Amino acid sequence: MMHFTKFESFDLGQELIELALAYKANPRIDLAKGQGKRVGCIFLNPSLRTRVSTQIAAQNLGMEPIVLNMDKEGWALEMNEGAIMNKGTVEHIKDAAGVLGTYFDILAIRAFPSLTNKEEDVTDFIFSQFIKYSGVPVISLESATRHPLQSLADQITIQENLAGKKKPKVVLTWGPHIKAIPHAVANSFAEWTLGMGHDLTITHPSGYELDEEFTKGATLEYDQSKALEGADFVYVKNWSGFNDYGKIISTDSSWMLTEKHLKHAPEAKVMHCLPVRRNLELSDEILDSSRSLVQKQAENRIYAAQAVISKILG
Amino acid sequence: MMHFTKFESFDLGQELIELALAYKANPRIDLAKGQGKRVGCIFLNPSLRTRVSTQIAAQNLGMEPIVLNMDKEGWALEMNEGAIMNKGTVEHIKDAAGVLGTYFDILAIRAFPSLTNKEEDVTDFIFSQFIKYSGVPVISLESATRHPLQSLADQITIQENLAGKKKPKVVLTWGPHIKAIPHAVANSFAEWTLGMGHDLTITHPSGYELDEEFTKGATLEYDQSKALEGADFVYVKNWSGFNDYGKIISTDSSWMLTEKHLKHAPEAKVMHCLPVRRNLELSDEILDSSRSLVQKQAENRIYAAQAVISKILG
Amino acid sequence: MMHFTKFESFDLGQELIELALAYKANPRIDLAKGQGKRVGCIFLNPSLRTRVSTQIAAQNLGMEPIVLNMDKEGWALEMNEGAIMNKGTVEHIKDAAGVLGTYFDILAIRAFPSLTNKEEDVTDFIFSQFIKYSGVPVISLESATRHPLQSLADQITIQENLAGKKKPKVVLTWGPHIKAIPHAVANSFAEWTLGMGHDLTITHPSGYELDEEFTKGATLEYDQSKALEGADFVYVKNWSGFNDYGKIISTDSSWMLTEKHLKHAPEAKVMHCLPVRRNLELSDEILDSSRSLVQKQAENRIYAAQAVISKILG
Repeated sequence: MMHFTKFESFDLGQELIELALAYKANPRIDLAKGQGKRVGCIFLNPSLRTRVSTQIAAQNLGMEPIVLNMDKEGWALEMNEGAIMNKGTVEHIKDAAGVLGTYFDILAIRAFPSLTNKEEDVTDFIFSQFIKYSGVPVISLESATRHPLQSLADQITIQENLAGKKKPKVVLTWGPHIKAIPHAVANSFAEWTLGMGHDLTITHPSGYELDEEFTKGATLEYDQSKALEGADFVYVKNWSGFNDYGKIISTDSSWMLTEKHLKHAPEAKVMHCLPVRRNLELSDEILDSSRSLVQKQAENRIYAAQAVISKILG
Repeated sequence: MMHFTKFESFDLGQELIELALAYKANPRIDLAKGQGKRVGCIFLNPSLRTRVSTQIAAQNLGMEPIVLNMDKEGWALEMNEGAIMNKGTVEHIKDAAGVLGTYFDILAIRAFPSLTNKEEDVTDFIFSQFIKYSGVPVISLESATRHPLQSLADQITIQENLAGKKKPKVVLTWGPHIKAIPHAVANSFAEWTLGMGHDLTITHPSGYELDEEFTKGATLEYDQSKALEGADFVYVKNWSGFNDYGKIISTDSSWMLTEKHLKHAPEAKVMHCLPVRRNLELSDEILDSSRSLVQKQAENRIYAAQAVISKILG
Repeated sequence: MMHFTKFESFDLGQELIELALAYKANPRIDLAKGQGKRVGCIFLNPSLRTRVSTQIAAQNLGMEPIVLNMDKEGWALEMNEGAIMNKGTVEHIKDAAGVLGTYFDILAIRAFPSLTNKEEDVTDFIFSQFIKYSGVPVISLESATRHPLQSLADQITIQENLAGKKKPKVVLTWGPHIKAIPHAVANSFAEWTLGMGHDLTITHPSGYELDEEFTKGATLEYDQSKALEGADFVYVKNWSGFNDYGKIISTDSSWMLTEKHLKHAPEAKVMHCLPVRRNLELSDEILDSSRSLVQKQAENRIYAAQAVISKILG
């Protein structure tokens, strides 16, 4: 594993889950491993969990994380090859990435999509520029298309809560939102859940079909109540249109998950990557109940990141 | 001591002062104590002294401080229980506090008052939400009503400058300002000065009466010159109205402390928590003279924080 | 060497270059030297390379760097002695500098010029206030007039690429830009290049003459193509007018350095401090070719800072 940007294989997924659980049991067991190594955490967008958990993960491995809020503390980046830079951008990504690659052993980068330029977003353009020009291992802290550290933490959480089930029924259900939200968490969750061999059903209002690259193998069920029947894990997430790119197609509040929706899924555990808009995507009654795994998912972000950094260190 | 949010008792106050002075003499004597422990410094508002001194205090105890400027780097927080989050706020404080409590052993939090919602401010609503939902010890880096680390540093500074006096005359005098300023420093200074057994006189223009919860036992004297007579320590601070909540009632520049005001207090030392608006609250001649203790107060912020963190670590 | 703000002597320059190259070969050889010492990195302006490289340099010496974005995280600073602070500024520089001097063993400060108040800029007013009031060694991370860590890194890079030449021909050429840019990098590069005994030619459109304090001993040649003939190193940089202070006098795009400009300097290496505006100051073809030393300059920023901090630690 050179970079960590997506799901690669069941074996690697399982290895990372097991390593993460070992670190959770004993966070500082590999404190000497990263001594003298540096990870640069580069944010082009806001972050709470990702920002803090990645720093903690690096510290648990004896590394020195340095955080750079590129959007606020650094310079506005030019992304276009060959651009004549006589406008607002101050530094070309190829120069910035090259320098950061010189300064750090590993780069961890967050770069959200524009949701306006589909071509640029689906090719993870910004992200791939960092990989191309930095010359060092790159960890995704959420790119335009994927959020693999979140997905790894989600899979760790599922594994911890299997309660003996071999092939749990996992449902990814769209929830309402007032803003146009990226597809990264939904894409990545589908990719990892399918890759780890679980049974995945996706449900959403018509028009919210995700990119098939990520959902092949999942059952698509437009009837939310049917989809939720007998679910073991329900992942709630909003996303904007993919075909009608970046658009809000529905805000139908009946899709907000409540206890009523789970009457035929009595044992379902409910997941969300956070931040969650309460009583819009998901009700208080669920979030504050024992069904909710959201705090455990957040906690597992530390050990997901620690496993990934450790694996890259080799 | 589970949390550090206010004055608790003379004995605890004295213990913290003595511990702080021990650390001042030998800052790294407990370098092993915090090894592997993490303190999260969460800022919802700007900070210089508090930000830096708390990080240094944690490092002196071998801890790894992580700073999060929640207002700029994180997500806008929803504070209201049961809110339908379909407006500007992105994450509910109960979720954010829960996650931060998972990530850190101790949380240190700055949350200024609104000065518009008295009910919310006087109950320290934001702050108490962090205590309620994080599940870990919380240190106040200034809440809506109190600034206890500042007050502990102030008491350390008074103790260092007692010059043999048993019961010094301490005067808290209001100073003019152009903005509506919180009551936290004034409240906390009164609470700690009285709690540590000193003789406290408070003076301000009529209408600036503070919350009696903090000032019971102090002498209230509206005549500033009379109040200042024979003072050993004069603490200058602006605050806005408490009864007429958050309002600027007077900007009378004759209240600005100058040498002339201290003609009947020849040995008075002058204190201020900083940042100070020179020649508005307090004159250059005083701030730049040997009367001024403001730099010593700032320095003692390190050791106040170090004593508090150390005490919480147990 | 008490502070590091400018070129002092050939001997000190050579000592710092050699120390930097020793650290480049073995970055952690002096890991024990800074143990328990703190450097405060204070930014009044944005930064990428300076921010990250200075933190790494400090960590390589076992120190704990603390970064403070004064412009965003702290308080607006008042610079004027005797000011009545009843407007937008919240804290006087003399108070802030005093406190920071109490908190840190070394201060590293970035303070750009206004480009509107020449008198204040040429006397490095802000910077000199920090030196005056902090009472600790101060390292310039770029002041109004100089950028000495950049210049030291530049000299390290020249020394590494001398290829046996004793007295290389170094050319500093002005490049076009759309904004009014400070003189600090150009001033400092001239000062250090001349101080280290190299042959320096400066070329720019008429009206862009730099302050003679920095350029005495250099050849001034208004004909760019003549200036570039036989160059070993070409440093490209924009700056605004010095006599017509802070003004954009020309945006003549024919001054942008391209391969064509170097036809009589076949072995010239090209330098720039970054961030560079591609295809405005300097062409892609040069930046992406083997002529370019810009990434090496950026890398050497770490070791320049490390040598300087180490020298100050003594």
